Amino acid sequence: MANNNVVLLDFWPSSYGMRVKIALSEKGIKYESKQENFQDKSPLLLALNPVHKMIPVLIHNGKPICESLNILQYIDEVWNHKSPLLSSDPYQSSQARFWADYIDKNIYSIGKKVWTGKGKEQEECKKQFIECLKTQEGELGEKAYFGGEEIGFVDVALVPFTSWFYTYETCGNLSIEAECPKLVAWARRCMEKESVFQSLPHPQKIYDFALQYKKTHGLE
Amino acid sequence: MANNNVVLLDFWPSSYGMRVKIALSEKGIKYESKQENFQDKSPLLLALNPVHKMIPVLIHNGKPICESLNILQYIDEVWNHKSPLLSSDPYQSSQARFWADYIDKNIYSIGKKVWTGKGKEQEECKKQFIECLKTQEGELGEKAYFGGEEIGFVDVALVPFTSWFYTYETCGNLSIEAECPKLVAWARRCMEKESVFQSLPHPQKIYDFALQYKKTHGLE
Repeated sequence: MANNNVVLLDFWPSSYGMRVKIALSEKGIKYESKQENFQDKSPLLLALNPVHKMIPVLIHNGKPICESLNILQYIDEVWNHKSPLLSSDPYQSSQARFWADYIDKNIYSIGKKVWTGKGKEQEECKKQFIECLKTQEGELGEKAYFGGEEIGFVDVALVPFTSWFYTYETCGNLSIEAECPKLVAWARRCMEKESVFQSLPHPQKIYDFALQYKKTHGLE
Repeated sequence: MANNNVVLLDFWPSSYGMRVKIALSEKGIKYESKQENFQDKSPLLLALNPVHKMIPVLIHNGKPICESLNILQYIDEVWNHKSPLLSSDPYQSSQARFWADYIDKNIYSIGKKVWTGKGKEQEECKKQFIECLKTQEGELGEKAYFGGEEIGFVDVALVPFTSWFYTYETCGNLSIEAECPKLVAWARRCMEKESVFQSLPHPQKIYDFALQYKKTHGLE
């Protein structure tokens, strides 16, 4: 399929946007990135994702695709010439989709309460968050990547959140490396990939963003 | 792929379980159904879906696949000889996945508050619920099915919830047909399909289940 016009509506601290950037980079697709302002969403975003009004939106030859995991699958199907994200084996790909869905149902929402929460609720969320990471560490097992020898769908779905680890740790007063050393080693391996390294912001930049967010939203 | 052993861990009032039954029926796959008891989950369920401990679980030649939309996609990939649920066009299939995901994020959780809620919260949820159905009615447009001329992924994802319409209406004191006549007409068209008709329980049976559930959980 022609790769003549690819635009990404993005917001740089979003792990969901990072997923799409990694996938496009893995496939070697050039694209234009447009940063959205959440306080003043663009008419383009509102027109192309009227249901959720959220980034990321991938615009391929004028047609919008929304929801990050959905976009990953689209990218994998359209640009299937290299770096497959999902296996061609239906069982393997079903397992990858299962774990990506698990990440979507847990990490962001629990993680947000870790870096914005206080007191007892925060402590409870920290426990849940670590439990959730340990579950994923268990799934990783002794493999180099969730995808096996190469990064795949689950790696791309999860690794953006590692750019938030410093924020979770600092705001939540916890050590992810002490709790999940193998997961942190996996994150380091992923960062050696050009596609990941170039798509993830520096953890300090995320932390500064998080502090500013808390200030703006009265969560200090 | 061999179709020598297909088992479904199910719970009959579950719309998620119904999805899988419709898909298997569309594909002409024979299977054994095992009913789970939510008060006393089977060791098999706990072993095969240790993360969520929820039905449906499809067991194909001994291997478990969990999460209903994931199962639908698996079924569609494995038994691709007839009745495609997802289009072979990546854009079309991305749109179908988007709407199925929209259904998953809204219908069950808002709908549950319609049939179990009370007072102001219930009224608020009724508005949200109707808005959500209207959004889907808008997506259906003038098509016979969400999938076009034949039922597809979104139809299979949504139609099980229509067996709950009588419960939403009676407990919530609302008329879905008055609000969304085209969606109700679509539901009737779907019910003319053998695969749907045979997979959905009678609305009265669902209602009796719902009343019993409310009694057991002190929600009357």
